[in-house]
Amino acid sequence: MKKGTVYLVGAGPGDPELLTLKAVELLREADVVIYDRLVGAETLRFVSPGARKVYAGKIGRSGDAQERINSLMVSEARRGKKVVRLKGGDPFVFGRGGEEAEALKRAGASFEVVPGVSSAIAGPAYAGIPITHRSVSSSVMIVTGRDAPEKDKDRVDWRRTAAAADTLVILMGAATLPSIAKDLIRGGLSRETPVAVIEQATTRQQKTRFFRLGALIEENAAEMVKPPSVVVVGRVAGLAEKLDWFKVGGRSTILRAKTRPARRDR
Amino acid sequence: MKKGTVYLVGAGPGDPELLTLKAVELLREADVVIYDRLVGAETLRFVSPGARKVYAGKIGRSGDAQERINSLMVSEARRGKKVVRLKGGDPFVFGRGGEEAEALKRAGASFEVVPGVSSAIAGPAYAGIPITHRSVSSSVMIVTGRDAPEKDKDRVDWRRTAAAADTLVILMGAATLPSIAKDLIRGGLSRETPVAVIEQATTRQQKTRFFRLGALIEENAAEMVKPPSVVVVGRVAGLAEKLDWFKVGGRSTILRAKTRPARRDR
Repeated sequence: MKKGTVYLVGAGPGDPELLTLKAVELLREADVVIYDRLVGAETLRFVSPGARKVYAGKIGRSGDAQERINSLMVSEARRGKKVVRLKGGDPFVFGRGGEEAEALKRAGASFEVVPGVSSAIAGPAYAGIPITHRSVSSSVMIVTGRDAPEKDKDRVDWRRTAAAADTLVILMGAATLPSIAKDLIRGGLSRETPVAVIEQATTRQQKTRFFRLGALIEENAAEMVKPPSVVVVGRVAGLAEKLDWFKVGGRSTILRAKTRPARRDR
Repeated sequence: MKKGTVYLVGAGPGDPELLTLKAVELLREADVVIYDRLVGAETLRFVSPGARKVYAGKIGRSGDAQERINSLMVSEARRGKKVVRLKGGDPFVFGRGGEEAEALKRAGASFEVVPGVSSAIAGPAYAGIPITHRSVSSSVMIVTGRDAPEKDKDRVDWRRTAAAADTLVILMGAATLPSIAKDLIRGGLSRETPVAVIEQATTRQQKTRFFRLGALIEENAAEMVKPPSVVVVGRVAGLAEKLDWFKVGGRSTILRAKTRPARRDR
């Protein structure tokens, strides 16, 4: 680890066993660690007791919070510190890592990137879902629900998205699922398309729920799905019940649909 | 690590520092390690000297090679062995991990999945390319060049693909790039779309070359691009020259275009 350098590090999806060797080494040696909300305590355990730990969320939530994070990284690097900027998943998959790298470059600070296991891949894997699968899915598209249909017309074209990939993985989409589902159906996806929603993927709190795409257009769907969730849309979602392998305390993390109430007329 | 269990493990993109803690622990404890071609010697170094190492490529290249790999995993698990099935990148991203999990399930063998850092994400990152980037790319599609246009009409629809995602990452596409490029252009992508081709990503042999999509439809393009390569199509590819950070022996891994020969008339 070099002094005066900022490392943009992926912390992986949650399970600390999925940290990379390089991430652990850097956490142990860092003078300063600036970490995001989705980074868990089990991951921060690797940070040396003498290091300064800064929760990026505390730096502020206003519009220039990102600028203050950038300034902190730059000033610590200029003081010769070894800086880790720690992000959930991978820093270049909806992690603003690219923006931060640009800011560091502009300021003349040296930086390195340490990719992490992305929750877009590992989340489904822990739910027993291969995002690609022979004769079922030969393409996967990763998008963020932050670019929901009603929010910004110029970003993700959800109708085109519907037609393009066999598997669609939506990150940060819990709140916007109903509008996304509507647009995917308008784009041509069947209402019967299987959907898996994996909450707190790869942690001991992981829960997987299954839906049909048509059921998600209901207004209350957003309430049923809590962040952080990874949403998988496509036929591969149907493999989860068969390939389910991740147990917590010996139990499956799949939540089965409740038994329907007995019919009155029986 | 449990006896009689098969672990489908991602070895990451090449740099052994990008192995996960779990992968290293399992490699150290395994009785049998069945590994793929793209797994390097630096990764196999972690395997215990007493373990049996089986190169999956040696099991055969004929049609039933996959069945023989499946049989070997099942028989070793039944004998109570701790088995690691080691794959380049992530086992569920074009790694046939889903098929192997199905085979293990059918045979009643217990298995676990250990996601790895995917070369589809880390390859670009080591070339200074964030596959998502604010106001440039808010969606990424990962496909395999094995499903090339002329090969199988029913698989990837490359023309639709062109319209769908801001960034397209093609794995195992070196040989089929000309036909893929043709279809992407027919699908509406500009001939000027930047393309980065990253050879042997994340290793000390990494090389990045840049093209315009239109140049790749030439017949000799396939010869210029050697496997294993990760191909990035989209505006983010243009960020590489700015954000290039990965040095080998102090030198950039970017191959600049050769200087044009001096004009005769000057």
